[in-house]
Amino acid sequence: MSLENCNKRTLMDYCPDIKVLDCTLRDGGLVNNFAFTDEFVRDLYEANIKAGVDYMEFGYKASKELFDTKDFGKWKFCDEKDIRAIVGENKSPLKISVMADVGRCDYKKDILPRKDSVVDLVRVATYIHQIPTAVEMIEHIKKKGYEVTVNIMAVSKVNSDDLDAGLQILAKSSVDAIYLVDSFGSFYPEQITKFSQKYVEIAEAAGKIVGIHAHNNQQLAFANTIEACRMGVSLLDATVNGMGRGAGNCFLEALLSFLKNPKYDEVPMIRFVEKHMLKLKEEGAVWGYDIPYMLTGIFNSHPSTAIRFIKDKRTDYTNLMHELMDME
Amino acid sequence: MSLENCNKRTLMDYCPDIKVLDCTLRDGGLVNNFAFTDEFVRDLYEANIKAGVDYMEFGYKASKELFDTKDFGKWKFCDEKDIRAIVGENKSPLKISVMADVGRCDYKKDILPRKDSVVDLVRVATYIHQIPTAVEMIEHIKKKGYEVTVNIMAVSKVNSDDLDAGLQILAKSSVDAIYLVDSFGSFYPEQITKFSQKYVEIAEAAGKIVGIHAHNNQQLAFANTIEACRMGVSLLDATVNGMGRGAGNCFLEALLSFLKNPKYDEVPMIRFVEKHMLKLKEEGAVWGYDIPYMLTGIFNSHPSTAIRFIKDKRTDYTNLMHELMDME
Repeated sequence: MSLENCNKRTLMDYCPDIKVLDCTLRDGGLVNNFAFTDEFVRDLYEANIKAGVDYMEFGYKASKELFDTKDFGKWKFCDEKDIRAIVGENKSPLKISVMADVGRCDYKKDILPRKDSVVDLVRVATYIHQIPTAVEMIEHIKKKGYEVTVNIMAVSKVNSDDLDAGLQILAKSSVDAIYLVDSFGSFYPEQITKFSQKYVEIAEAAGKIVGIHAHNNQQLAFANTIEACRMGVSLLDATVNGMGRGAGNCFLEALLSFLKNPKYDEVPMIRFVEKHMLKLKEEGAVWGYDIPYMLTGIFNSHPSTAIRFIKDKRTDYTNLMHELMDME
Repeated sequence: MSLENCNKRTLMDYCPDIKVLDCTLRDGGLVNNFAFTDEFVRDLYEANIKAGVDYMEFGYKASKELFDTKDFGKWKFCDEKDIRAIVGENKSPLKISVMADVGRCDYKKDILPRKDSVVDLVRVATYIHQIPTAVEMIEHIKKKGYEVTVNIMAVSKVNSDDLDAGLQILAKSSVDAIYLVDSFGSFYPEQITKFSQKYVEIAEAAGKIVGIHAHNNQQLAFANTIEACRMGVSLLDATVNGMGRGAGNCFLEALLSFLKNPKYDEVPMIRFVEKHMLKLKEEGAVWGYDIPYMLTGIFNSHPSTAIRFIKDKRTDYTNLMHELMDME
């Protein structure tokens, strides 16, 4: 996507190169420990196809050496047979992705050669200091035949020089797309504008595209996603009903209704919400904008403090603020 | 505020001419029929003073000829004695505002001469076709000695020529500020950019300022407010916890934490949420982002359909969509 084209884009038109990735099972899995029913996953797969979504992320490829399979739902591990039980050979235009964390994935063993898998895209998630290891993973997975993207997490805590250096290393790798990730939901739209410009400039020069993964701590996940889109970011993450860790993510149904690309249709997604998401909430899954997440967003802090606070059914926000200040 | 100055503003700096207006009692009153306890109102008044908020709106000056006082809490009418019971002579820097709807306020009788009132600002709310009547009200209230602002409601349904004509009429009036109002929460930030430019250009030429009143149907109230602010809009409406009709408004606590003006402090507001807002929700007051409001936002439609849908405890979103399409 050329930046010029996208800045000229009006609300009545669209960029054909925009792609949407549904990561409900993966980021939402952090809410309910990946305990989705097969019916939920199958209906989401069907809804994504009908809605024109480009990628559906099934979960993590987590190491079974590091994590006990008894402690998690199956989408923490995304075994090939489990994905195939839902999608068969996946004779649909919807591509399938999985996420692999640097240091928490036995990628040499657990990621099959592309020809033996229905997975299309592997998304490598890395912290800034792990980038050299991430590049080794990227090259290995790329050689196996996959599309590969990389998420640099927690960039709101990374200084500009380190980020520039990291981006330059990734620009030289075989990765297809680099993700701007607002892990703590701490960015305002005008920061997204600047970061998007930086990422797009570096990525485009290397023939790559840029993605955005936003969190909703300050109720800006959707606004930040469409701002990034305006600035030339073309791979957009979202989840149904914004389901995701803590404050959650960009709402997929809002994003689809915003995008004017004729292939997108929010109706199947709204039907899916009607059938599945209300039940999930009734059963006790908790996510979404709330004061404690707003506070971790403001303090540019990991949401774990707020998640614990809410789990403990605490409402003494003032004390939470003091705790967050002490962590600064 | 000059537009140039504000575009040059960085996140580390601030515009000293920004003013914040808390309209929790007024827009939030539409949720609970203005049934706020005196303790709630008094604590909100104190919290606003501590937080450095510039204006607190107590409610409507509604006509007692048109509305039965038995059907509403007292903040629907904002009698002078009721405001004074909370604020006394209001020996604080916090200014007091009330809202007067064109055609639903006996302003000649019910709005006292400024010297007999603790109210500082009267906000006239008008539809585009009522602007000549609004101007008559504005001049009358201005002559009584008040600051006066005007909200043009539902502009997302007004054609550009009519809006331009309406703005030019208001520019010639004695009104102090003109509000950009996203009544249906249907604007995206890039539309706010353009509308803000238009409003600021016309208002500045006439020596007036511009305000923004956003709704949260697409979870963009905060994002749209700070985008307007970036474009030179200087009078910012918000409500505690976003309390307001339907999807509610811009969150005051988020806005205060965003603004870098040293006088603003979100802490008293977060304490207020802790003490009062959770209880209000427990007692059954319902507002905030939800699929039905997102749909009326997308369809640029009055939220009343969604409010009824939610009151009826319906969750058949697909049918709601059909109903909204039929109303197009």
